Amino acid sequence: MSAESPIRFGILGCAEIARKISRAITLAPNATLYAVGSRSIDKATAFARANNFPPNARIYGSYDALLDDPDVDAVYVPLPTSLHIQWAVVAAQKKKHILLEKPVALNVAEFDRIVEACESNGVQLMDGTMWMHHPRTAKMCEFLSDANRFGQLKTIHTCFTFAADPDFLKNDIRVKPDLDAHGALGDAGWYCIRAILWANNYELPKTVVALRGPILNEAGVILSCGASLHWEDGKVGTFHCSFLSSLTMDITAIGTKGTLHASGFIIPHREKEASFSVASETGFDEFVTSWVPPPSDHIVTTDLPQEALMVTEFSSLVGIVKSGSTPEKKWPILSRKTQLVLDAVKASIKKGFDPIPIEY
Amino acid sequence: MSAESPIRFGILGCAEIARKISRAITLAPNATLYAVGSRSIDKATAFARANNFPPNARIYGSYDALLDDPDVDAVYVPLPTSLHIQWAVVAAQKKKHILLEKPVALNVAEFDRIVEACESNGVQLMDGTMWMHHPRTAKMCEFLSDANRFGQLKTIHTCFTFAADPDFLKNDIRVKPDLDAHGALGDAGWYCIRAILWANNYELPKTVVALRGPILNEAGVILSCGASLHWEDGKVGTFHCSFLSSLTMDITAIGTKGTLHASGFIIPHREKEASFSVASETGFDEFVTSWVPPPSDHIVTTDLPQEALMVTEFSSLVGIVKSGSTPEKKWPILSRKTQLVLDAVKASIKKGFDPIPIEY
Repeated sequence: MSAESPIRFGILGCAEIARKISRAITLAPNATLYAVGSRSIDKATAFARANNFPPNARIYGSYDALLDDPDVDAVYVPLPTSLHIQWAVVAAQKKKHILLEKPVALNVAEFDRIVEACESNGVQLMDGTMWMHHPRTAKMCEFLSDANRFGQLKTIHTCFTFAADPDFLKNDIRVKPDLDAHGALGDAGWYCIRAILWANNYELPKTVVALRGPILNEAGVILSCGASLHWEDGKVGTFHCSFLSSLTMDITAIGTKGTLHASGFIIPHREKEASFSVASETGFDEFVTSWVPPPSDHIVTTDLPQEALMVTEFSSLVGIVKSGSTPEKKWPILSRKTQLVLDAVKASIKKGFDPIPIEY
Repeated sequence: MSAESPIRFGILGCAEIARKISRAITLAPNATLYAVGSRSIDKATAFARANNFPPNARIYGSYDALLDDPDVDAVYVPLPTSLHIQWAVVAAQKKKHILLEKPVALNVAEFDRIVEACESNGVQLMDGTMWMHHPRTAKMCEFLSDANRFGQLKTIHTCFTFAADPDFLKNDIRVKPDLDAHGALGDAGWYCIRAILWANNYELPKTVVALRGPILNEAGVILSCGASLHWEDGKVGTFHCSFLSSLTMDITAIGTKGTLHASGFIIPHREKEASFSVASETGFDEFVTSWVPPPSDHIVTTDLPQEALMVTEFSSLVGIVKSGSTPEKKWPILSRKTQLVLDAVKASIKKGFDPIPIEY
């Protein structure tokens, strides 16, 4: 890619998260900030200025205008979830490759229409699940795939919670049923579900059951919930997500021979290094008063933060498509599986915590 | 206590765990190994020799003979759960203070009979939940009780799993319905339940629901299961326990302002030190790429291992009773609450994962 020109990004909207991704595009060696579009040209202008857009960047006062720019290769779509179906489909039709913020859609049927638009227009689609691109994730995956050190996965628990402030809980798009209708399940639970699937080599569970006692706001949007995922062979995954508790992003995966734990698995504690701990074939000393061997800690460093690595990977795939190949299908398949489980959690809550069968 | 004579312990049976507690009694400054009783005098003799009993220790060929020894102050009862009701009641009637291995009984009704026998005979009762006595536990409790650093508990997850070998899964008392009928729920889940109650200041949940997909052996004994506990205010606790997965003992408690995590919370990784990590009022940096502040690790050292501290605490209470006070009721109350939840998990499994209301 180094000899090729960088992928030119257009940013659709000036969401807070778009600041992080604009920085990531600047950091990625094969991508460049090229345009920003907002319904307000003033907001777009201010956004470009505040986020180190190059002086000649294009500033658009509408999403359509940005999508009509033939020099935009790819768009980053941080719009509210309810708008994904509309704008991702238009973007695909305009032959823009799409980095789509999660949750990808209001339901899997909508997401299938987005995928169809991308496929029929030959554009790459990837969702914005940044932690997937951290080198720690690859290292953790190595451990989980090691039949000698980890064995077979038996159970996994993940959680993502953060304490939203009163303004967020009143006004943020993530608590509005007409904007990000999935609430904490879409914003935080998405990552928990993805992590459970990831640790299961993306094998879908047979059934999903929501835990009792989810907390909804007055409009019916989920502020806190959990679920259990069940596989035919007895494997169980559980997760908890919430806007109402202190910042926590934990994963614990337990296999027949080993255990993996990571804190901050979604966003690392530090930008350039991330840790995880593993235990393997651990037992006790003679009097069962200590572990032999104790778990070991591992630190993985990275020059580029995970979101820049995501942009780099996405841009690399876009480059491959631009040179004539078909888009990589892996990423939309992972998005779809995550959305399927998310939909099932909502369905289970709606049906009084009944188990919901999963069919791909 | 230092001026008083140490509490003289009799060990009822030669279970593997009795080796650990015999060592703990030797280490405890206010306790001494005085007698061991087994149905086999040869086993009792060998046990005493192998576990540093003093040369003049009494060796008995029956439990009754040990209980008839007027110089035995207290007994440690590591017998199979199904035998607790019989021998704990006899021990109480013989005025022996009782350190009772967990799970304390086959069900709360049986435990109530044990408590009644202890109360009417004025003897101290405590169960063998060792981690409660580690100074790390007190430090963690300080954090959980801190309204500024932790806030109010919202959710907690605990797990205790270990990979039992084929011989255990075939022959151990913990997989036999007529001996330790609770299987992994009693052996491992007991600690998970206790930890959830501990973090809730021992307030019982309103309902308990078993997770689907427990794994039972051919005789119907639980090898792996989980459950969720629900409080009126929306608090949720979940746990997973198993004989079928790698050694893991994790607790993650999440409050409105802070998060606590400890690995090896039931048996620390090292005998003389134990760690936990906390995050408090943590957020992100400007670009949401790192935690500000990151969680901090804390190490708590102890000269005596937790089981010796448990014996010390128990012996101290026994000493107080011997000097004329009534027994401390706190410990049997904690045992009873733990047993109530354990019973509810089993009832929920039996009733097809229905929620089971908890009434004290």
